[in-house]
Amino acid sequence: MPSGGARIRSEQLEAMAGIIHRKKTSRRFATALSKLIDLPTGKVKDSDLDPKYVAAAKEWRRDYVHDIALPSAFIKEFAKLTSHSMIAWRAAKKENAFEAFAPYLERIVNLCQKKADLLGYRDHPYDALINEFEPDVTTQEVDALFSNLRTHLIPLIKKTALQPINDEFLFGDWDEAKQMAFGHYLLETMGYDREKGRVDISAHPFSSSSHPTDSRMTTRIHPKNLMSNIFVILHEGGHALYEMGLPQDLYGTPLGEARSLGIHESQSRWWETRIGLSKPFWQYFFPLLKETFKGQLDRITLDQFYRAINKVKPSLIRVEADQMTYPLHIILRFELEKALIEGSLKVSDIPNTWNAKMLEYIGLTPTTNVEGCLQDIHWSMGAFGYFPTYTLGNVYAAHLFEGFARDHSDWESHVAAGELGFIKQWLHEKIYRHGKRYPTQELLKEATGKTFSADPYLHYLERIH
Amino acid sequence: MPSGGARIRSEQLEAMAGIIHRKKTSRRFATALSKLIDLPTGKVKDSDLDPKYVAAAKEWRRDYVHDIALPSAFIKEFAKLTSHSMIAWRAAKKENAFEAFAPYLERIVNLCQKKADLLGYRDHPYDALINEFEPDVTTQEVDALFSNLRTHLIPLIKKTALQPINDEFLFGDWDEAKQMAFGHYLLETMGYDREKGRVDISAHPFSSSSHPTDSRMTTRIHPKNLMSNIFVILHEGGHALYEMGLPQDLYGTPLGEARSLGIHESQSRWWETRIGLSKPFWQYFFPLLKETFKGQLDRITLDQFYRAINKVKPSLIRVEADQMTYPLHIILRFELEKALIEGSLKVSDIPNTWNAKMLEYIGLTPTTNVEGCLQDIHWSMGAFGYFPTYTLGNVYAAHLFEGFARDHSDWESHVAAGELGFIKQWLHEKIYRHGKRYPTQELLKEATGKTFSADPYLHYLERIH
Repeated sequence: MPSGGARIRSEQLEAMAGIIHRKKTSRRFATALSKLIDLPTGKVKDSDLDPKYVAAAKEWRRDYVHDIALPSAFIKEFAKLTSHSMIAWRAAKKENAFEAFAPYLERIVNLCQKKADLLGYRDHPYDALINEFEPDVTTQEVDALFSNLRTHLIPLIKKTALQPINDEFLFGDWDEAKQMAFGHYLLETMGYDREKGRVDISAHPFSSSSHPTDSRMTTRIHPKNLMSNIFVILHEGGHALYEMGLPQDLYGTPLGEARSLGIHESQSRWWETRIGLSKPFWQYFFPLLKETFKGQLDRITLDQFYRAINKVKPSLIRVEADQMTYPLHIILRFELEKALIEGSLKVSDIPNTWNAKMLEYIGLTPTTNVEGCLQDIHWSMGAFGYFPTYTLGNVYAAHLFEGFARDHSDWESHVAAGELGFIKQWLHEKIYRHGKRYPTQELLKEATGKTFSADPYLHYLERIH
Repeated sequence: MPSGGARIRSEQLEAMAGIIHRKKTSRRFATALSKLIDLPTGKVKDSDLDPKYVAAAKEWRRDYVHDIALPSAFIKEFAKLTSHSMIAWRAAKKENAFEAFAPYLERIVNLCQKKADLLGYRDHPYDALINEFEPDVTTQEVDALFSNLRTHLIPLIKKTALQPINDEFLFGDWDEAKQMAFGHYLLETMGYDREKGRVDISAHPFSSSSHPTDSRMTTRIHPKNLMSNIFVILHEGGHALYEMGLPQDLYGTPLGEARSLGIHESQSRWWETRIGLSKPFWQYFFPLLKETFKGQLDRITLDQFYRAINKVKPSLIRVEADQMTYPLHIILRFELEKALIEGSLKVSDIPNTWNAKMLEYIGLTPTTNVEGCLQDIHWSMGAFGYFPTYTLGNVYAAHLFEGFARDHSDWESHVAAGELGFIKQWLHEKIYRHGKRYPTQELLKEATGKTFSADPYLHYLERIH
């Protein structure tokens, strides 16, 4: 989009959101929905109703209950505050001035607390916030899961990061057109249908779908960093494949929508880490990468390459973190968010708490807040409850991958032969085609036959190097 | 857009069109509008109303009266028939089988006659159809104008086309990236604001604007034809500049919309022909073109180049026609459309009538209907009344240009120095900023101080070579 068009586009989106909100909270919609499901209790009225429609009715009701809980005056106040806060955050980050952002953050925390009260919750106000992004999960469950991860990861990282691994050869001069061509080739092999999507360049890569037949994505080409575009392609491609695989005949209903942000992230991280960081994958693709960049990787063995891309090295910036330290960045943020929302942490204490936790978790201390609590845009957007979905996605992916590896015990030899089609097929069968048919835990169990557990994720991380 | 997404996009557009149509024909809208203007008669109720708002009220009423005249059952029938007809037309064109398309065209003519009856007209049913694209003009006026053009152009073309002009050097191998860079440079010099638009590639170039701050366009790069992209850039750039110049503060009202298709076309043809085919323009840009394609145009003088791009050579295909024969392609289609709608021509007689007129007007006879009456998509789309706007645009452009040349008697020396900013400024002052403030004839008179006439257009064409 031309930059000058941003203002009118946001006005158009606001107008559209208003129309949709009014329709979704209208008496007419409520009356129709009430015939299927009792809105106050969620009890389905017709006990013979096809389970598929029961699932849809419950999701429609979930949205309805959410939408009517937030008065439009509140939504406007929230939108106004966060739009100012994003500007304040950018300025504060530029000048390393947390104190300039703090008053905005205090008001955001207050409004998020108010939001939780409006939406309602059983045990913890943070439940209401996290459920906006990941339904059916509780703060207590996330807390238990994250404590478990934290306990295992802190010593594991200390041990793993000791190994000296050379990854300098990944940084050099990498022709941009060749990078793009290689990325397109990967996407095609994954099963991305170019007739139903397109790939563009943007500063911050993302994927965006309006329908299974129009699922687009962006990537970024870093002229010095060979792996940047490759991992973005696998990551955003994973999101895009999910959207392409949602059932077209149920478009417009919850059954045609992705289950949750966490499940979405499990799809992107699946391709990025479980496939794209695996040795079988590069057994096939590394020779092709060498061929693409003739002469530039001649002296590098597959093993050296594999170790380099899997290098674990604690760093302060979340978006640059490797897969083993990344969860600790998330856990830290979750702990702070929870404490802020329950009122046990003051905004002014964030920098100290952040820095102390960072030292404890990954052994590093930010020298400035820019490297610390000012690095992410999320809080300025009021997106409290969003961060946990990143790590949930990784844990879900590992749980699913265990089931996949059981169903395809020979997956490594197929992938090493450059065959990836059966992977997409498995994901389609287990995840894509179901949309919101099952709650997350049920979906994870249906897919693998096993109750969701963090063990596969921990086992996977322990086996790196 | 990904090709696979076409179906859902058309469903989305249909849904959106339905919402807009319901709102624009709602009782609520009619009641509000009735406070300004009497809907049956068009009489403005408040005689002290600001003339700007009077103009807006009249345009709103025009749309309202149009929209309520067409029952949604009719609109659906029309959409269904034309969507089938476009497929039938493509197949018929492929196989040179007019008889396979004829039954569809007969039904389209019938529905267009019905449409004219539903919309109402004073003198001729074709009035109702042409007014869908060009308001306030009558069939009789177009007929008189086109007869005048035809009478002058037939002998003029015979005379002009006799001159042997070499334009072979325009066809060769032209680097696509250089073509694109030159196109971008031209656009920038015209005053196209890249912050408020973007340029992409498409098979059929077009421009599309959703707001003055988001006015996009496409071009096509022909590797063998040097001028293809250049003229597209000037043409679509002219459309895009008009949209960029519409008053932002009146967005959403008729005063923020382009006056008519004819006026729009006057803007594109202004840049493409009156500027882009002029000698002063190439006095400045031809050396730059030579510089861009180093070595490829060394032996060509400005005069040779100028004569080549202005070459007049009758041909059978409208979209490949030069500027002097183009109007005759349009006049022929207008005459056929008018006769079909009034019932004086049968669909089965189209090929013979087409071929006879073509011989009379430009001295050529199609050997197949593919080169004749099957060449255009317009009739299969049901767009009877559209063709005349192409030629109206040229005639309007010439009328306006005479006023411009009077206001800027030194325009040639400025353009020869590469200054184009004052052109956009003049058009902004005279056309862009007014939106639909004035009816077309008034706009043309306000801009130039003179009553609209075809003379400047004929004088211009007579002076070519």
